[in-house]
Amino acid sequence: MVKGISHIGIAVCSLDEQIPYYRDVLGLSFLGKETVEDQGVHVAMFKVGDTRIELLEPISPESPVAKFIEKRGEGFHHIAYSVDDCKISLKKAEGMGIRLIDNEPRFGADGHLIGFLHPKSTFGVLTELTQEHKKP
Amino acid sequence: MVKGISHIGIAVCSLDEQIPYYRDVLGLSFLGKETVEDQGVHVAMFKVGDTRIELLEPISPESPVAKFIEKRGEGFHHIAYSVDDCKISLKKAEGMGIRLIDNEPRFGADGHLIGFLHPKSTFGVLTELTQEHKKP
Repeated sequence: MVKGISHIGIAVCSLDEQIPYYRDVLGLSFLGKETVEDQGVHVAMFKVGDTRIELLEPISPESPVAKFIEKRGEGFHHIAYSVDDCKISLKKAEGMGIRLIDNEPRFGADGHLIGFLHPKSTFGVLTELTQEHKKP
Repeated sequence: MVKGISHIGIAVCSLDEQIPYYRDVLGLSFLGKETVEDQGVHVAMFKVGDTRIELLEPISPESPVAKFIEKRGEGFHHIAYSVDDCKISLKKAEGMGIRLIDNEPRFGADGHLIGFLHPKSTFGVLTELTQEHKKP
């Protein structure tokens, strides 16, 4: 089902505070920032090999990422796997007993179609399935 | 400094309980199991794109991974980046103000030379630098 790792999502209090670590210490290639209103986050992206690191800074205290940081602190938030067809992959996972957060794909960063599996079904690892797909 | 993501380490209570999710639901390529006594873990490895998922099951309640699970539950444990030279990369990170767990490289899974950066310096993300290098 899965072709590769699309990205690793990391919850951070401040993009600007952490960008120098990823860009200058680790030497990852900084791809830029964007805001994903739907998910309540400012995102900074870095390329590393054939995958990416996505830093996620909450837009407001109501953002799910703000609540995550409040509960768990900064750190790993989710892993996103690349799939050919997000809708089919979500249905397939559900058919194999996995609980879904998203019953239907929605648009994420970069205009990709995404859907989340529930961490209760994936042993505590919040998991996204990502289909590269530009908004029309 | 970094060439790619070597692997994502995930702390689990039981390899056998989780292998079917990674192999059959996500469809990752199962590479096998090994035991890394030094780190107190049984490891199951999966290939995905040009990187890997490493499930880490503690050998005993004294294993650092057992303590991690006790405190945080199952889930993301660490990210490992591939580097050309682990020793040089550790020194370079230290020179840029990063606190190290390992001042010198040691042997990890697969006989690779590895060294950990301290999560206090990496915003809560336990980070390993990995140099592929077989034991003599």
